[in-house]
Amino acid sequence: MRIGIVGLGLIGGSLGLDLRAKGHYVVGVSRRAETYERAIAKGAVDWGSTDPAVLSALDLVFLCPPIGSILSVALEIVPHLSHDTVLTDVGSVKESIVPALEKLWPRYVGGHPMAGTAAAGIEAAQSQLFANAPYVLTPTLHTDGEAIDCVAQVINDLGAKLLYTTPADHDRAVAWISHLPVMVSAALLLANAQEVNEPIRTLSQRLASSGFRDTSRVGGGNPELGRMMAEYNRAALRHCIIHYRATLDHLLQQIEQEDWTGLEANLAVAQAYRQQIYP
Amino acid sequence: MRIGIVGLGLIGGSLGLDLRAKGHYVVGVSRRAETYERAIAKGAVDWGSTDPAVLSALDLVFLCPPIGSILSVALEIVPHLSHDTVLTDVGSVKESIVPALEKLWPRYVGGHPMAGTAAAGIEAAQSQLFANAPYVLTPTLHTDGEAIDCVAQVINDLGAKLLYTTPADHDRAVAWISHLPVMVSAALLLANAQEVNEPIRTLSQRLASSGFRDTSRVGGGNPELGRMMAEYNRAALRHCIIHYRATLDHLLQQIEQEDWTGLEANLAVAQAYRQQIYP
Repeated sequence: MRIGIVGLGLIGGSLGLDLRAKGHYVVGVSRRAETYERAIAKGAVDWGSTDPAVLSALDLVFLCPPIGSILSVALEIVPHLSHDTVLTDVGSVKESIVPALEKLWPRYVGGHPMAGTAAAGIEAAQSQLFANAPYVLTPTLHTDGEAIDCVAQVINDLGAKLLYTTPADHDRAVAWISHLPVMVSAALLLANAQEVNEPIRTLSQRLASSGFRDTSRVGGGNPELGRMMAEYNRAALRHCIIHYRATLDHLLQQIEQEDWTGLEANLAVAQAYRQQIYP
Repeated sequence: MRIGIVGLGLIGGSLGLDLRAKGHYVVGVSRRAETYERAIAKGAVDWGSTDPAVLSALDLVFLCPPIGSILSVALEIVPHLSHDTVLTDVGSVKESIVPALEKLWPRYVGGHPMAGTAAAGIEAAQSQLFANAPYVLTPTLHTDGEAIDCVAQVINDLGAKLLYTTPADHDRAVAWISHLPVMVSAALLLANAQEVNEPIRTLSQRLASSGFRDTSRVGGGNPELGRMMAEYNRAALRHCIIHYRATLDHLLQQIEQEDWTGLEANLAVAQAYRQQIYP
């Protein structure tokens, strides 16, 4: 297939590496010439341009800019697409994107690869990033069946675990497992940073080992991405934080009341639930 | 040196492996014969027994039972120790242990290696578990100077990063970086487990990727250990949870008020703080 990638960051670049490895011809479009030049040098695209006109006569185009730019980038590129080009995006929220994009382009399918690393940018791109990771497609009643098949075939070929759901259900599920963890983890860092007893704060930093490192990882990620998750998935994230806070309050109450049997029972439920998710 | 280890679990067994590798002669004492037999087979001790009388004529003894049993195990073994044997423990809380143990044995030094894995028991024991990890000693005004030097020398030899602090400061610092993360992480699992919308809950489990896995890791650990952290470090943990909750409430407020600039600024502070801890 002839495939376009618009936005050559971690996700766009990693897609390019795998798609080229599968024999597809990949054209990259970036805002700056330097970016597509680095993508060519890295082997992530066959060639590139800053001009969206190069996207004409392609079979499939992946939109990979930051969430906040997806709609504006889509508006820029659709005038250049051939009538039968399939369009998909990789945005981590769907309800605020899918309805607008499907009005803009009849052969559009919303998508979201559940993969990433702490790093960003074309230099962080890596092959096999999507292998065995969930990849969600969010077709609606309006979505073209052939377009779904086209995207699904390419994604299956990358070794990702393909899932289908609605934009609304996608957003509510990722609020739980992606957006809430960012806020929970960031609050851990911020609360520790705000400990006014300086010797205790300094000592805690020196003692921090694997538990704190893992629990604080996503909270120490890209602030702009965290802000956009919240901005574009506000209602679902709010629901999760409110339920989370009630759960934490319940643990605090058990600690204050010295209900150690009850606390241990709750921690056993948490352990069992995690073992169910990661057997 | 001739070194005793009482309690042959993950920590006791891992200490034995490294101490033997450094040429020390290691005697293990466990509640059940099966445990010290497995420790001998694994190479974690030179020989073992269920009888604390074998601890006589040793230079140094590590107490490695679960936190809740440290005092009762210490009471059992001290009648068997030689007059100049140095005693130390590896309990993850210190203020509720150190004053009692230093009354019980004049050559006692409190300690806490900041190392561990998700697994428990002698089979999980591994060499080099303490290399480059912080190892805290909590001597007091009453602690024998030679006893401190003895424990410090052995621990330095394991490649651990040795730190000294008071029992109270230790407990307040580990509440931040070890005990609070357990509660924050467990609440994440419990809140998701309690989502009443079953399709959303199931979808979130299927979409859970590295972010949720890392953030939920310590919350899905041993419930008995989590309960004991809370039970033996109640006041410090309560302080941390209350401050944590206020911080999370502030993030929620920014989300509700759509203060995206403020939220991004907070997330940037979290990112910078984490980079300071893990440069």
